[in-house]
Amino acid sequence: MIIKGDICYSKTQKELKTVKGGYLVCEDAIIQGVFTKIPEKYRSFPLKDYSGKLIIPGLIDLHTHAPQYAFRGLGMDMQLLDWLDTYTFPEESKYLHIDYADKAYALFVKALKSGATTRALIFATLHTPATLLLMEKLEQTGLITMVGKVAMDRNCPDILRQESAEAAYISTKAWIESSLKRFKSTKPIITPRFIPTCSDELMQKLKHLQERYSLAVQSHLSESQSEIEWVKKLSPSTKTYAHAYEQFGLLGGGKVKTVMAHCVWSEGEEEQLIFDNNVYIAHCPASNTHLSSGIAPIRRFLEKGIKVGLGSDIAGGPHLSIFRAISSAVEASKMYWRLIDRDSPPLTLNEAFYLATACGGSFFSKVGKFERGYELDALIIDDSKIPTTNPLEIEERLARIIYYSDDNHILQKYVNGKEVFSSE
Amino acid sequence: MIIKGDICYSKTQKELKTVKGGYLVCEDAIIQGVFTKIPEKYRSFPLKDYSGKLIIPGLIDLHTHAPQYAFRGLGMDMQLLDWLDTYTFPEESKYLHIDYADKAYALFVKALKSGATTRALIFATLHTPATLLLMEKLEQTGLITMVGKVAMDRNCPDILRQESAEAAYISTKAWIESSLKRFKSTKPIITPRFIPTCSDELMQKLKHLQERYSLAVQSHLSESQSEIEWVKKLSPSTKTYAHAYEQFGLLGGGKVKTVMAHCVWSEGEEEQLIFDNNVYIAHCPASNTHLSSGIAPIRRFLEKGIKVGLGSDIAGGPHLSIFRAISSAVEASKMYWRLIDRDSPPLTLNEAFYLATACGGSFFSKVGKFERGYELDALIIDDSKIPTTNPLEIEERLARIIYYSDDNHILQKYVNGKEVFSSE
Repeated sequence: MIIKGDICYSKTQKELKTVKGGYLVCEDAIIQGVFTKIPEKYRSFPLKDYSGKLIIPGLIDLHTHAPQYAFRGLGMDMQLLDWLDTYTFPEESKYLHIDYADKAYALFVKALKSGATTRALIFATLHTPATLLLMEKLEQTGLITMVGKVAMDRNCPDILRQESAEAAYISTKAWIESSLKRFKSTKPIITPRFIPTCSDELMQKLKHLQERYSLAVQSHLSESQSEIEWVKKLSPSTKTYAHAYEQFGLLGGGKVKTVMAHCVWSEGEEEQLIFDNNVYIAHCPASNTHLSSGIAPIRRFLEKGIKVGLGSDIAGGPHLSIFRAISSAVEASKMYWRLIDRDSPPLTLNEAFYLATACGGSFFSKVGKFERGYELDALIIDDSKIPTTNPLEIEERLARIIYYSDDNHILQKYVNGKEVFSSE
Repeated sequence: MIIKGDICYSKTQKELKTVKGGYLVCEDAIIQGVFTKIPEKYRSFPLKDYSGKLIIPGLIDLHTHAPQYAFRGLGMDMQLLDWLDTYTFPEESKYLHIDYADKAYALFVKALKSGATTRALIFATLHTPATLLLMEKLEQTGLITMVGKVAMDRNCPDILRQESAEAAYISTKAWIESSLKRFKSTKPIITPRFIPTCSDELMQKLKHLQERYSLAVQSHLSESQSEIEWVKKLSPSTKTYAHAYEQFGLLGGGKVKTVMAHCVWSEGEEEQLIFDNNVYIAHCPASNTHLSSGIAPIRRFLEKGIKVGLGSDIAGGPHLSIFRAISSAVEASKMYWRLIDRDSPPLTLNEAFYLATACGGSFFSKVGKFERGYELDALIIDDSKIPTTNPLEIEERLARIIYYSDDNHILQKYVNGKEVFSSE
C-alpha cells in the first residue's frame, strides 16, 4: 500500500520531518519509507491518494481510565484524594453490573475508536466480567491496547476492595488467562492502582503473575503531595515512593516494561531509579492541572534521558484527545518555566508532538514514526475545515490540528497497517 | 416572549441559580423573571418550548483581536514581544488591503456569530476602511460589540505606525463620527494599543476624543514582565504602568468606562488604582499561559472588589470560545494556588462562569443574569450531544457544556431579546 499526502512526523525530539505530496510506502503493515516519487520496485502497490490532506502518525495514550469516561468533566473543583472518594470510587463500583459496564464502555470505546488515538494503556476496574467486556469491545475496534483489571485490597470503599490478596490473585490469574486466549490486539497489563490501595502481599502476588505471563506493568507515581505523604506513612522503610514499587519488582528494570503515570513530584533518587530501570513516564498535564497536583518537570526528565509519553488520564483530565494533551503539555511547561525554574525552557509544540507519537509509541514496538521498519499507525486529517486566509506550511498546519481538531476532521485511521476508522 | 427549558445563571459570584423546566419571561427585550409556572399576566405571551435543553446567559468576551483570528494557533512557542514582531504586526499590516480584510474578517465574524459569545470588546487595526468593514459585518450579526481602531504612533513597524499623533487624531475622529452615524449595536471604543506604542501626544488626543464623544476605553496593562520593564523606561516618572494611562485620563474614574486586558503582574498601588477608578480587568488566562506571561491573581482582585470579566484574546489565546476561557480561568487559578500562593483558593467553575456572564456583562449594561430588568442575552444549548450514562443535575450539565461544547451544540442565540443565530 502507498499513501499519498502531506506527510509529517517527528524524526527526533527536536526534528520534525515534512514532505509535501509525499508517498508513504508500506508492505505487510511495515513502513518502507517516505518518498517524493514512488520508487520503481513499489510501482505495483495500490495507491491511496489523499493529496492535500495531512498524514501524521497515530497518537499514543499512555494513561487513561475507561470507567471514568462517563463522568468526565464533573468534580473538577476537587483535589486527588477527595475526588477519588467522592466521584471516582462510587462510579467505578457501578461496573459490578455488566449492563452498566456495557453502556458506559460503549461510549468510551466509540470515542477512542473515532478519535486520533491508535494505541493506549487503559485502566479498567477490578471487575473481571466488565473488564473482559471492555477488552472485547476494544478488540473489535482494531486499536492496539493494553488493559488492566485494577488490583486494590485496602484503603478503598468495601465495594471496590478485593476481599483478600489471595482472592485478587485468583481472579487476576483467571482474567489474564482468559484475555490472553481471547484477544490478539488487546493485552492484559498488571495494574496495581497505586501503593495506598495495595497491600504488600497483593504486590508480591502481582509480581508473580507479571513474571509468569511476561506482562507489562502500569500504575501511578508521585501525583500529588498528600498522596506522597500517605505513601511515606504506609511504607516508612522505603527510600522513595518509586522504591515502594521497586521492592516488589514492579518498577521496570530487566524485562519488566513499566509505565508510571504522573511523576509530578519525582526527583533525586526516585528520578534516578526511574531512569535506571527504564520506566516510561505517562505525563498527564491536563489532569495534573485540573486536580491541582502540580506541574511535572518534563524538560528535566527528557534531559536525563527518561522516556516520556502523554496520557489523557480520563477523568482526572477532562479530554480523551491526545491533541489536547499535546497543547496542555506545552502550556504546563511554559508555566513551569515562568513560575518554577527559569533554567527549564518550555517544550516546543514539536517536542510535545514527539512525546505523543514516537516516544509514547516506542513503549509498544517500532511505532510512531514513518521510517523503514516501523509499523504503520497513521491518521489522515482534513485540515481544510479549520479556515484561514493564509497559505500554511505543513508544520503550521500540524499546529492548527493540535489546537483545533479536538479529534475531529479525521478522514481515515490506520493501525498496524489496517484501516480501523473512516469518517465516510 | 417566554422561553421554557432548564434554566441556569449566576445570581452572585458564589451562587448558581437553576430551575428545571422553568419559564424565562421577557417583555420588549427586558427580562421579567424566571418562574416555575407562567404567571397569569404573561399567559398571552408566545411560548418557545426548549424543554430538556439548557438555557444560560450569553457569554461576554471582554478582550479579543479580530485581525489575529486568521493566524490563530501559530507562533505559540514565543513570548509577547517577539510574538508581536514576528507574527502579529506583519499580519495586522495586511489589513491595509480591504480585500484581505474582507476575507479575514468574514472568518472572524462568522465564528463569533455562531459561537456562545453575545457581546464583545474587539481590537481591530489602525486602518479606518478595514475597521469600518469589520463593524459593518458585526452590525449585521445582531451581536452587541465595541470595536477599536487601534492607535499607535511609535515602537512598531513603519507600516503600522501612524505618521503623527495629529494624523492619528484626524483619522480616529473621522472613524468615530462615521461609525456613530452608521451603526447601532457596534460602538467605537478608544483603543490605544498599549503605552509602548503610544506617544504622550497621541494619548492626550485620544483623551480629547474620549471626552468629546463619551466613549469607553480599552487597552493592555501589565501583561508580561519584559513589557513592564519597557514601560518603566518609557515613562520613568509615573508610579506604575497603570498610572501611565491614568495621567492622561484614560484609566477609568468618573465617567470613563475602561477595560484593561491581562493585569497579570498588577499589585500594590496599581491594583489600588484599578479598584479606585472602577476599571474592569479582562482576564485572558489562555493567552497568559500560551505567551508564558504568568498567572493573574484573580482571587485577590475579586476579594478586593475589582470587576473581572474574561477575554479570549485571540490570537494570544488560541480559542475564541469563552467556554474555553472559563475552564482556563479555573485551571490557571489552580496552578496559582498550587505554585504561588496557598492562601489564594482556586476559582470554582461557577465563579468563572459568573465572570464570563454577570460580571463581564455589567460592563455593557444590565446583562448576564436572568433577573427582572436585565436585557435578554441567552443561549439555548442541546447538551444531549455530550453522552453520559448518568442522570445529571443542571449544574453538572453546565460543567460539561463548559468543558466539551467548545461553542458547538448551540441551538439558538438571543441578544438583547432578538434571535441572532439558529443552528436549524
